Amino acid sequence: AADTPDSLEERLRILERKLELAEEQAANNAREAPAIKINEKGVGIQSAQGDYEFKFRGLLQADGRWFIDDRAPRTHDGFLLRRVEPTFELTLGKALFFRIQPNFAPDNATVSDVYGELRLSPVFYVRAGKFKAPVVLENLQASAATVFNERGLPNELGPNRDYGVQFGGAVLSNTLSYAIGVFNGAPDGRDATQQPETDNRKEVAARLFAEPFKNSPGFFQGLGFGVGASHGEKQGSAAANAVKYRTPGQNTFFSYLTTVGYDGDETRVSPQAYYDRNGLGLLTEYIVAKQKVAVGSNHEKLDNTAWQVVGNYLLTSEDASYAGLTKPKRPITQGGAGAWELVARYGELDVDNDAFPLYADPTQSASKARTWATGVNWYPLGNLKIALTYSQTGFDGGAASGADREDEKLLFSRFQIAF
Amino acid sequence: AADTPDSLEERLRILERKLELAEEQAANNAREAPAIKINEKGVGIQSAQGDYEFKFRGLLQADGRWFIDDRAPRTHDGFLLRRVEPTFELTLGKALFFRIQPNFAPDNATVSDVYGELRLSPVFYVRAGKFKAPVVLENLQASAATVFNERGLPNELGPNRDYGVQFGGAVLSNTLSYAIGVFNGAPDGRDATQQPETDNRKEVAARLFAEPFKNSPGFFQGLGFGVGASHGEKQGSAAANAVKYRTPGQNTFFSYLTTVGYDGDETRVSPQAYYDRNGLGLLTEYIVAKQKVAVGSNHEKLDNTAWQVVGNYLLTSEDASYAGLTKPKRPITQGGAGAWELVARYGELDVDNDAFPLYADPTQSASKARTWATGVNWYPLGNLKIALTYSQTGFDGGAASGADREDEKLLFSRFQIAF
Amino acid sequence: AADTPDSLEERLRILERKLELAEEQAANNAREAPAIKINEKGVGIQSAQGDYEFKFRGLLQADGRWFIDDRAPRTHDGFLLRRVEPTFELTLGKALFFRIQPNFAPDNATVSDVYGELRLSPVFYVRAGKFKAPVVLENLQASAATVFNERGLPNELGPNRDYGVQFGGAVLSNTLSYAIGVFNGAPDGRDATQQPETDNRKEVAARLFAEPFKNSPGFFQGLGFGVGASHGEKQGSAAANAVKYRTPGQNTFFSYLTTVGYDGDETRVSPQAYYDRNGLGLLTEYIVAKQKVAVGSNHEKLDNTAWQVVGNYLLTSEDASYAGLTKPKRPITQGGAGAWELVARYGELDVDNDAFPLYADPTQSASKARTWATGVNWYPLGNLKIALTYSQTGFDGGAASGADREDEKLLFSRFQIAF
Repeated sequence: AADTPDSLEERLRILERKLELAEEQAANNAREAPAIKINEKGVGIQSAQGDYEFKFRGLLQADGRWFIDDRAPRTHDGFLLRRVEPTFELTLGKALFFRIQPNFAPDNATVSDVYGELRLSPVFYVRAGKFKAPVVLENLQASAATVFNERGLPNELGPNRDYGVQFGGAVLSNTLSYAIGVFNGAPDGRDATQQPETDNRKEVAARLFAEPFKNSPGFFQGLGFGVGASHGEKQGSAAANAVKYRTPGQNTFFSYLTTVGYDGDETRVSPQAYYDRNGLGLLTEYIVAKQKVAVGSNHEKLDNTAWQVVGNYLLTSEDASYAGLTKPKRPITQGGAGAWELVARYGELDVDNDAFPLYADPTQSASKARTWATGVNWYPLGNLKIALTYSQTGFDGGAASGADREDEKLLFSRFQIAF
Repeated sequence: AADTPDSLEERLRILERKLELAEEQAANNAREAPAIKINEKGVGIQSAQGDYEFKFRGLLQADGRWFIDDRAPRTHDGFLLRRVEPTFELTLGKALFFRIQPNFAPDNATVSDVYGELRLSPVFYVRAGKFKAPVVLENLQASAATVFNERGLPNELGPNRDYGVQFGGAVLSNTLSYAIGVFNGAPDGRDATQQPETDNRKEVAARLFAEPFKNSPGFFQGLGFGVGASHGEKQGSAAANAVKYRTPGQNTFFSYLTTVGYDGDETRVSPQAYYDRNGLGLLTEYIVAKQKVAVGSNHEKLDNTAWQVVGNYLLTSEDASYAGLTKPKRPITQGGAGAWELVARYGELDVDNDAFPLYADPTQSASKARTWATGVNWYPLGNLKIALTYSQTGFDGGAASGADREDEKLLFSRFQIAF
Repeated sequence: AADTPDSLEERLRILERKLELAEEQAANNAREAPAIKINEKGVGIQSAQGDYEFKFRGLLQADGRWFIDDRAPRTHDGFLLRRVEPTFELTLGKALFFRIQPNFAPDNATVSDVYGELRLSPVFYVRAGKFKAPVVLENLQASAATVFNERGLPNELGPNRDYGVQFGGAVLSNTLSYAIGVFNGAPDGRDATQQPETDNRKEVAARLFAEPFKNSPGFFQGLGFGVGASHGEKQGSAAANAVKYRTPGQNTFFSYLTTVGYDGDETRVSPQAYYDRNGLGLLTEYIVAKQKVAVGSNHEKLDNTAWQVVGNYLLTSEDASYAGLTKPKRPITQGGAGAWELVARYGELDVDNDAFPLYADPTQSASKARTWATGVNWYPLGNLKIALTYSQTGFDGGAASGADREDEKLLFSRFQIAF
């Protein structure tokens, strides 16, 4: 019972229309459905129009610190969690960005970064909350990407995370970035704490950073340089006592006497640069922190300075980058050896000699620290880094009877998952 | 080589069947696939049958507090994080609801809300965990929705979040809601702390709230009124010493002497109402906290009272609401001016005069505080609120030699992201 | 105007091709789209190839503790949050696993578990971070699955969570699991704290556990047995003072004198077994903790021991399991009665008599504790458990003049949501 062609044509027409509708429906669904991603960068959900986006990322640093030859241990050898930072980011309607990065690493949870950003144009944003003050280059590098377990000595003189408001952006085809902010004022080398804000005074911090050849492949493409600075009034002993310069092993080798107070403004200036080419990465920076201190009727302007050079070299043909390495070219899960990286650092921190003995105790606080470190980082597969590095730090002064503080010799291990 | 109609018919039949199957498949997929949403309300994942649902939401309040004319600063000017609350909610099989809202705002993370709810019917739920005791109207308003940076003086006399079990629900077409719970007992104006629970005694808190015209558009639709109350036994000085009445600037202006102890029950009663119509919002409440205190052989029943009126008016034709404003009608990203809101408050807190001088030190604690505040809130785009408000609080007593405590004059700023 | 067959054939061919393409597209989409799941096990997102996977799970335990006949209350009656643990897990490229489980339960947030795992094969993994040392059976059971609100007395002698590195895996068709790790060394019954690591010495912990009939249905299928052990050097009074044996009500009934220090190694050995069959679950374990302590010139080797038997029986035909019960067979939302479970425990902890009076104060510390408990757990619907149990603990010594410490009689309630 064959149909007549007429009826066939009718059925065909219906079918054509149905398929058209199904295709429209599928296209509509695709247009409206949020895009879900899960890969080595974590979890992402993006609205169909792209104006809302959620990201979940994470960082775990399980470290070991093994002090060698320490006759009078200041810190015990052992395993520790250095950073445990799940991160939630949300873009809300394109112009608004929200980021929260708790840190569960010490025994009590805190928040590392938390801020909102109004991104009115590529060249201008306003940011409010708690975040890194824009001064020290290695400090601004992501914690998952730093070459060694701990940042270097210049970091001890700069501000770390602070509470405030910042304006910034990037101009000239993204080759020049700027940031300027007003903050409560963080102690040298530390986060500002919210409770208590130690004084009524505020601090301004700013940074200009150029990557002039960023968009031009070639020898200079990976070059970036700039300057960060801060200026703020600080008063009182609570602020001065928060200053504690630390070794790589996180032992304090310099602090002011508890009777010392800040006595006016602190100014920091930090010229800085990095250069990456193929497997080679270099980072160098200098910082001077000019501090006015007083004790009793004595007043002094102190210039504390620090500098460092950090280098890393990837032996397995991956590219070195200030942003760190996410994926080895030949992971062990594919029969490769993973990525291997040699690392080295030299740095110095020099406390103004006028600090002694009126403002700091020469038998407790060293006037100078010199540190060198070297080691190897292994990236067996994506998101995983296993590091073993050795760090040695020597001092001028800091012990009884004019002697030098004992060298700190330290073996660092790290098991890091970052996504 | 044209096919015969028969063969064409065959191919057509196959095609029809195939399309039918593909449509069924697509329908099945749609029926089984969880629905993902990401928009100005955050991230949501809902199972296909709707019985499981996950929500991620967040709140960031980056504030500034700038005290004016403060001769002896009690709190330093500065930036602070007032609330950093990511929220995770999960509905598990329709009847079970779970909510966790950590707060990363101070230097140590805590949890604001965390509870489970068994929702056996629309008119009845059981809730257990840590959550707001059902007493003070403005306290129960979402933190993202309050008109000013800080809640008013009645909030200082009511309980805040507490540990316990609550029954509640809504009846009469959702126009009457009720809640009654048993709690550890929170100090006036504060969260209960878990460690240590200060005494063996418990507190009962309850609230009845009516919105009789909720479902009837018209002049009275936005009217809600009710009464909250608590009654509990309290004993000892730890409980009494946790009582600290604060100014909007979060400075304590009244506390009991450390030798004072609770000596029996505390009863709080709080009639309350709000009214919203078009751009106008009003909220008013009164509270009396009747406390039995003792020191040595002296016993006293004290009646501390507070009340306030809060108003807000949206200039840009959005509707005012107790639930707050999520989206301006004309966001700046669409060339508009955002939403603009004028706000005002007046409130008083009156400590029973019998408290002085036996139970509180008149040179340290004020017997009365009067506060007024005004300002402007700007919602440039969805999820973002920028607020600038001025608050002034005067006192009776609280300073040496019978003088009045210095007025608190305070400029508040806020950068708020809520989703 | 009928078409000619030729033209019909042309249209048909186009249609066939179009449908083919649409089917390919749909298949491609299905192949590439991540799979989203939301159900009684929480939220999961899995990449299309299955090598990346995200999971969000949670645990809330809202407890009540009601002490009966306590003349001199050591802990106040009240509601508390025992555990508030959202958990995020991420599998990154099959071989790498990341888990973070914060705990927001006390007033300050901490992290329970956080570790990374490199899973090179089913029989071998490396884990680094903070997690449970592999010694005590009930300690290793999930907190949501333990039969009673608090774990038993053997748990007081074993290590809890610690910082370190562990190797482990399962062999013989998953019937034998092993784990061995190096840790900082956790005090008896407690988590290790990161700051400060109390000494330079480390602890090795290991466990071998067999479920020989796991894959053979029958009478012995649910049998598991094994032994956990730890050995480590410990020095000094900080480590010894962290030892505090607790009752089920979390009151300390034994601690060393503050002048006592560890004086060498501590060795723990714990044989252990469980057996599940149908509705019946049994768990038993013994532990000896051999500790070298010293005070002044006195040295002693102490053997503290504990053991317990725990049983549970499901009255409503669900199967008992070491992993706990997720879903009742007949939830109340489907007209059923939920699942009902009877539970019972007996346990003892015996402190070495040589500890008294030189190392512990017999008027403060008991030399022996005996505890029994019984109660009922109700699972009204999936993910929810409501428990009411009674626990009674008696002591030898621990009070003035050679008297026995007052019995602890304690009613526990629990409202638990786990997913």
